[in-house]
Amino acid sequence: MTRPSIPKGTRDFTPEEMSRRNYIFDTIRSVFRLYGFQQIETPAMENLSTLLGKYGEEGDKLLFKILNSGDWLSSLSSDDMSYLTSNSASTLISEKGLRYDLTVPFARFVVQNRDKIQFPFRRYQIQPVWRADRPQKGRYREFYQCDVDVVGTDSLLCETELIQIVEEVYRRLGIRVCLHLNNRKILAGIAEILGEAERLTDITVAIDKLDKIGSEGVNQELLAKGLSEDTVNRLQPILNLQGDNGEKLGQLAYILKDSETGMKGIEETKEVLRLCKSAGVKLDIMLDISLARGLNYYTGAIFEVKALDVEMGSITGGGRYDNLTGIFGMPGVSGVGISFGADRIYDVLNQLNLYPEHSSEQTQLLFAHFGEAEREYCLTIANALRSKGINTEVYPDICKIKKQMNYADQKHIPFVAIVGSDEISSGTVMLKNMLTGEQQAVQSDSIAEIITL
Amino acid sequence: MTRPSIPKGTRDFTPEEMSRRNYIFDTIRSVFRLYGFQQIETPAMENLSTLLGKYGEEGDKLLFKILNSGDWLSSLSSDDMSYLTSNSASTLISEKGLRYDLTVPFARFVVQNRDKIQFPFRRYQIQPVWRADRPQKGRYREFYQCDVDVVGTDSLLCETELIQIVEEVYRRLGIRVCLHLNNRKILAGIAEILGEAERLTDITVAIDKLDKIGSEGVNQELLAKGLSEDTVNRLQPILNLQGDNGEKLGQLAYILKDSETGMKGIEETKEVLRLCKSAGVKLDIMLDISLARGLNYYTGAIFEVKALDVEMGSITGGGRYDNLTGIFGMPGVSGVGISFGADRIYDVLNQLNLYPEHSSEQTQLLFAHFGEAEREYCLTIANALRSKGINTEVYPDICKIKKQMNYADQKHIPFVAIVGSDEISSGTVMLKNMLTGEQQAVQSDSIAEIITL
Repeated sequence: MTRPSIPKGTRDFTPEEMSRRNYIFDTIRSVFRLYGFQQIETPAMENLSTLLGKYGEEGDKLLFKILNSGDWLSSLSSDDMSYLTSNSASTLISEKGLRYDLTVPFARFVVQNRDKIQFPFRRYQIQPVWRADRPQKGRYREFYQCDVDVVGTDSLLCETELIQIVEEVYRRLGIRVCLHLNNRKILAGIAEILGEAERLTDITVAIDKLDKIGSEGVNQELLAKGLSEDTVNRLQPILNLQGDNGEKLGQLAYILKDSETGMKGIEETKEVLRLCKSAGVKLDIMLDISLARGLNYYTGAIFEVKALDVEMGSITGGGRYDNLTGIFGMPGVSGVGISFGADRIYDVLNQLNLYPEHSSEQTQLLFAHFGEAEREYCLTIANALRSKGINTEVYPDICKIKKQMNYADQKHIPFVAIVGSDEISSGTVMLKNMLTGEQQAVQSDSIAEIITL
Repeated sequence: MTRPSIPKGTRDFTPEEMSRRNYIFDTIRSVFRLYGFQQIETPAMENLSTLLGKYGEEGDKLLFKILNSGDWLSSLSSDDMSYLTSNSASTLISEKGLRYDLTVPFARFVVQNRDKIQFPFRRYQIQPVWRADRPQKGRYREFYQCDVDVVGTDSLLCETELIQIVEEVYRRLGIRVCLHLNNRKILAGIAEILGEAERLTDITVAIDKLDKIGSEGVNQELLAKGLSEDTVNRLQPILNLQGDNGEKLGQLAYILKDSETGMKGIEETKEVLRLCKSAGVKLDIMLDISLARGLNYYTGAIFEVKALDVEMGSITGGGRYDNLTGIFGMPGVSGVGISFGADRIYDVLNQLNLYPEHSSEQTQLLFAHFGEAEREYCLTIANALRSKGINTEVYPDICKIKKQMNYADQKHIPFVAIVGSDEISSGTVMLKNMLTGEQQAVQSDSIAEIITL
């Protein structure tokens, strides 16, 4: 019989991996809570009507669709078959899909539960999402997202708080990062003063590649897309902004002075930076006008966070959207949010070897014993230790001490209490520190003290 | 536009519900860890070959199947259509399904990862499962299971530890429970001494209904199934066992004296009860020979836990299985486990009103302010409080105090720090206790002390 396997692009998480993942999730969650964000969960399955058309044509193809229960086949008459495509036939035999991200379900949640929600609504959500992407290194078909959003206010204090959250999460994790900041209105302003407001997408898609292909490459692409040489020339000072954030904003204010939208974007960015200063943010924030991400629904600030000491794409990103709930019939609800990429953070922590040595999930003490009477003796002491909050195991089988020690070793249990008949008579255990190899006879009521030192 | 909705049988969880659910999960998880259990996670999607045939014919129908990506339609030629049923056609266009429980994925995990695992393997797993059941009150198509299992040992200490875990979880939650205990070998022994070993399933299915239909009803059912009157008569003393666990086991030992299997079941049960006593278990444990649950794979102890103060089915259940991994080609791995039913525990806690008043997830303090300068003043104080671990919000918008107070009220935030120009000049805040209505001027560096009292 061949070993069973799991679908490609999915993963099992072993105890060791889970303990590292929990460390990341717990850190993120505790910072979210510190800022008054509250958790929600939405179902894994959404109606396809909720999901379809929200992620572009490519996204629609990447949705995992659930086959209807019961007699789905009768919805496909043989007549149908001749002119149906897999795509069009899907909607006949499937009405549910797995969520593709947490943003659309969140928008759906807000609209559906608007009467129960207190606005401004501060929510976080940590759940898996599924995409039928071609699996490849670092890209999975099931992965967790950690999203945090405020909706129902356009206060720029929210942008500031998200930046504070980024700073605090990465401070706690020990990862040095830089936050790239842009504003959709600045991008719109640039297109406007170039006289190409209609081609905002072409322009930003090209600019977005600046750090990969350089300004020469960007120019080539824009010319290829049909922009005039004159227009491309006028873009150059923008691509080559120099100096710190204040200096760049100064130059931009001059360049965009005739664009109301552009000037608004500059004002918003200045205000976010000012509020960050007031709030004592020390994080490295860099104005990056090449940053576009998900341009389609962002309307204000755009964020992206990169680790400084590891080559890795964005590990956190997000922005402000003014009309996310509009697609579900509730217009005019402005919101801003960011998403932490748990898998990439996991890889960064692994590469930098930044995981804490001990985890609260680990067994701290194993009782190893020479026989039945000894095992019995362990039970009461083990209970007393557990009531002090110490994770304790009693080896379940009666077997050689060597096997029991080996188990402790493999499981990285830091202390073993060995019990033979001598220990029973003296009310002690032989306590072995598995790291140093030292062992000493210890009164059973002193064990807790020693191992929690 | 009609409001968006979610698939029937699924649920959104609001912040208030999540905080209650997290309370349950955190309690269960912390007890699991205390006994050295470690978390794993498996993918939501499993290959259908892993799932099919594991839950009976009915179970196969209740699996949610994922439509293959890409051109699935070409797998269904028009020729096929004429003789295919929905069931047989499913396997042509779907090769993945959503997990139906945590037990089969766990068995698959153990076999697949056998080289990475240290046996005896103590794992817990808290994840949702999906079943295409007809939705009804209290039955959902997506719900969480909390499973804890030890595999790779047949030591009865494991049964004992699971009973200790049950005791500790419900002690922490404040729910009074009774644990029903049986053993599959006792049931097999009963069928054997009745001369009906082959009809173990019929007999236990009938006995299982004892507390619903009474012994008269059980007899009727057995006669209807074709058992002789004589056989049914010989079953009576077993159905009417009286006394405490020791007395019942004494009577059973007499009745089952000619069945080796039955006597083994009695020995195992006695040993579990003896170990429980040694381990100081005070839980109400009742030998219940009518308990059968999932007879198909249990081979030893069978557990079920019921709340004493609420009418509710089983809130926890499980048992020992000697060959769970056999279906995946790894025979001879004995294990024992239990599963906590989070949804029912949630309902019990609601009915008994047993949730703690304050949750660590809640915002403890809101800053309300009269304008921009005041809001700015709040930022620094808010940071200082957060660095002390206090969940703090600053109201993001500049708006009427009444609106801000209303927000705090609706969100059950216990303290509000009101800031006007007077407070800025004196370095204070006006701290209002939202429960008592009292308010006092407080130096900003004394806020933490007061609200954590």
